[in-house]
Amino acid sequence: MTLTLVSIGLSSHRDLSLRAVEAARHADAVYAETYTMKLDTDPQRLGEAIGRTVQPLTRGRLEEDAGSLLDEAEKMDVAVLVGGDALTATTHISLVVDAAKRGIPVKIIHGASVFTAVAETGLSLYKFGRTVTIPLPEKGPVDSVLRALHENRENGLHTLMLLDLDEPNKRYLTIGQAITRLEEAAEFSMDTLLVGVARLGSDSQIIKADTAVNLKTLDFGDPPHAIVAPGRLHFMEEEALKMLAGCPPELLADRKIQGSIDALIEKYTVGCRRALDELKTSPTPKSIDEAAVAELLDHTKRYLNDAEYYRREDKPVALTSVAYAEGILDALKLLGLAEFEW
Amino acid sequence: MTLTLVSIGLSSHRDLSLRAVEAARHADAVYAETYTMKLDTDPQRLGEAIGRTVQPLTRGRLEEDAGSLLDEAEKMDVAVLVGGDALTATTHISLVVDAAKRGIPVKIIHGASVFTAVAETGLSLYKFGRTVTIPLPEKGPVDSVLRALHENRENGLHTLMLLDLDEPNKRYLTIGQAITRLEEAAEFSMDTLLVGVARLGSDSQIIKADTAVNLKTLDFGDPPHAIVAPGRLHFMEEEALKMLAGCPPELLADRKIQGSIDALIEKYTVGCRRALDELKTSPTPKSIDEAAVAELLDHTKRYLNDAEYYRREDKPVALTSVAYAEGILDALKLLGLAEFEW
Repeated sequence: MTLTLVSIGLSSHRDLSLRAVEAARHADAVYAETYTMKLDTDPQRLGEAIGRTVQPLTRGRLEEDAGSLLDEAEKMDVAVLVGGDALTATTHISLVVDAAKRGIPVKIIHGASVFTAVAETGLSLYKFGRTVTIPLPEKGPVDSVLRALHENRENGLHTLMLLDLDEPNKRYLTIGQAITRLEEAAEFSMDTLLVGVARLGSDSQIIKADTAVNLKTLDFGDPPHAIVAPGRLHFMEEEALKMLAGCPPELLADRKIQGSIDALIEKYTVGCRRALDELKTSPTPKSIDEAAVAELLDHTKRYLNDAEYYRREDKPVALTSVAYAEGILDALKLLGLAEFEW
Repeated sequence: MTLTLVSIGLSSHRDLSLRAVEAARHADAVYAETYTMKLDTDPQRLGEAIGRTVQPLTRGRLEEDAGSLLDEAEKMDVAVLVGGDALTATTHISLVVDAAKRGIPVKIIHGASVFTAVAETGLSLYKFGRTVTIPLPEKGPVDSVLRALHENRENGLHTLMLLDLDEPNKRYLTIGQAITRLEEAAEFSMDTLLVGVARLGSDSQIIKADTAVNLKTLDFGDPPHAIVAPGRLHFMEEEALKMLAGCPPELLADRKIQGSIDALIEKYTVGCRRALDELKTSPTPKSIDEAAVAELLDHTKRYLNDAEYYRREDKPVALTSVAYAEGILDALKLLGLAEFEW
């Protein structure tokens, strides 16, 4: 028979589409999965909107015990209601892939998602980079969040940060708690411009742009919350941030998002140009001894080791180190102090 | 009074949410904007779904003449139905910002969008980078598309490419035509793995992963179409691409997405290590004359000029050039052949 994932949308049963209601109504069994996202609804109210009994689906039934759900979908039409747009969660993609492997026809009914509703901040959806989830403290460090922030910033892109939740225990990371987690990482500046969004798509949504330090103490109310870190801003986005997210205009003045590659190129170009301008050649002919060459080769090796060390953590620095090493080697070669072929 | 943008969702009036229907039903005037996206519906069928008369909104009324629409929204509750999720289009954000400037309360009812429905390809939404639109031939070159593809690939990210349309003339760029546009740009390889998607969210959707050359001649049927260029793939995404998008498995074997910085680091590290291994120092003491130093300084200046030349087009190459120049200058300094301060 079939497995249909029916997206609930952003907030409640009122966000179900006509297509979603119809699909759920005609299924043989209807479940609601409500732990991957905080929703302002429950199986009963979803059932009333659809005109059918809706059974809650436990986390186990969707993950470790997905097999029994798929057994059911082999025999009848099963609909599973999920928050947001159905396939934003990896766990739902897994379910769909497993169903496909068993030859069970799968259908997805789409719905609204924070991934696009976040455009209410005024930031262009075309300019978002990698998305991350800020984990609850017990679920691990924020390293990958900081890496994504850095990478997106490097490319001038915005970063959507979703906030972790532990639905069975009704714990939802708030904007303030999430900023505190970032603050604990030394690299994160509390002057960073962020946009906090709460309950997007509901009647009580809040959208507010300000520095991390100011947003940290703001009360955004009930979950779900999310945070956006803007990248480079088009002037229309700046205007939209002011009008739609109450961004203090002074935070947008002189805001410079420069990638680290750009910064390195600028720094070294300025340095090399100045060195060339001020450079005095020493009296020639000059005699170079073995110790001087050996020392320079050691210096080169240290930079090559640096290149390998930084290769994972900071690629622009790694590239700078190895290209610098190549420059030294080439100088030795061109001066006739060393022989080798590139 | 108010301006409400009501998202229609991916395909037709059936994709309206209960919240959307309710909002439109209670407005004083209801318009449908149907030119930013190809929908399988029209104002009449939208009106039937809502239980109200829906008037078509011309492009002019939303753009050059947006003032008259906002005049109306000052006096009554105006609802505008738009395809997809309302704020994915820049023109809708502009309208909302203009309304906010005039003090008109704005409300957005969200809906499903290709930006998240594209997860049906099996690719993780968390790993998408900058989104682009491939323009119709008369609307300009594909340079910015290629830049986005390159930048996203550099970071291992997927690229969603939307396809341009000219709704008044019923012209919609197809997957085949879009690939032809990319093919005409020398940098694009027709062996690139792409995923073509057509009519996502409708009952007739098609999703197919294959090389650009194979997808180019495939008939995807009616619009709207879109294309995704996968970046680095997690093994779960590979499996999903095979199961959900019919990706030929051989296209996933040995697929290496290496950023150009990574490639440069690898190339130079291997080269420098080999040079160091094979290097023989020349007999010392060796006398260096003025001409040799002058030649090396000229060489350095050429690389600095390269760094400035490539700075816009190819940052990793620019960084390599300037760091190489710095290496040579430092060699001269450390050998006592030149005097300057960094």
